[in-house]
Amino acid sequence: MCYDQSCAYCAEGARLDAFGIKIAEMPMSKLILFKEQSHRGRVIVACKRHVDDITQLSREERAQYAEDVSRAAEILHEVFKPDKINFGAYGDTMHHLHFHLVPKYAGEYEWGDVFSMNPHLKELSQVEYDELIQSIRVKL
Amino acid sequence: MCYDQSCAYCAEGARLDAFGIKIAEMPMSKLILFKEQSHRGRVIVACKRHVDDITQLSREERAQYAEDVSRAAEILHEVFKPDKINFGAYGDTMHHLHFHLVPKYAGEYEWGDVFSMNPHLKELSQVEYDELIQSIRVKL
Repeated sequence: MCYDQSCAYCAEGARLDAFGIKIAEMPMSKLILFKEQSHRGRVIVACKRHVDDITQLSREERAQYAEDVSRAAEILHEVFKPDKINFGAYGDTMHHLHFHLVPKYAGEYEWGDVFSMNPHLKELSQVEYDELIQSIRVKL
Repeated sequence: MCYDQSCAYCAEGARLDAFGIKIAEMPMSKLILFKEQSHRGRVIVACKRHVDDITQLSREERAQYAEDVSRAAEILHEVFKPDKINFGAYGDTMHHLHFHLVPKYAGEYEWGDVFSMNPHLKELSQVEYDELIQSIRVKL
């Protein structure tokens, strides 16, 4: 697996702490809780390989990454029962494949629209983060 | 393949004409040019099955859908040479799996941010659409 010390998803530590908390490793991914929780249950599925987008994976890696994204989404459906999950990969100015998985709830924040990159509206206490992480981790 | 007459991606025709032009069929998808071209080369990869999100596909279908999305992105890289491609699946109020593939160009519209669902800023002439479609179709 390639590695970039300046990349939050490769280096983890303080760079990742700035916006996320690692929940678990999946076969091809790191599953990360997004600290900004305007959308309850929002996570990131970051590929273990430092590639720019899915075209740079092998067919087998891409299939496994798709499985990881799908399994993470299944867990969000089970735990949070959203009305929809949005999937978004942006990262114009960084270069590590990751998808935001954003549970949406009918009539609530940003329903019917795209989601903001980071609205900086809702952070939780460490106890609340721990509860969210545990509710996801037990399903893995 | 399941089918919903009220769904633009299943029914095509006038419902699809409202925002897109079908470029081609791929093994698991319909490749569609998004008429709003603020991001040059923006397309949609719509799954041939009328499912809500990737969790409702079989492992084999999901792998093939990921291949189609990746192949479409490869073509956008080749033809339009963007600095990044964004991938987004939303559809809070509709229920047909599709990803927007949005080429982004450094310093240009929405660079460094998410992309709008439909900014309604830039439509092209039919001749220009035909040229774009042809430039993609020859790579398939």
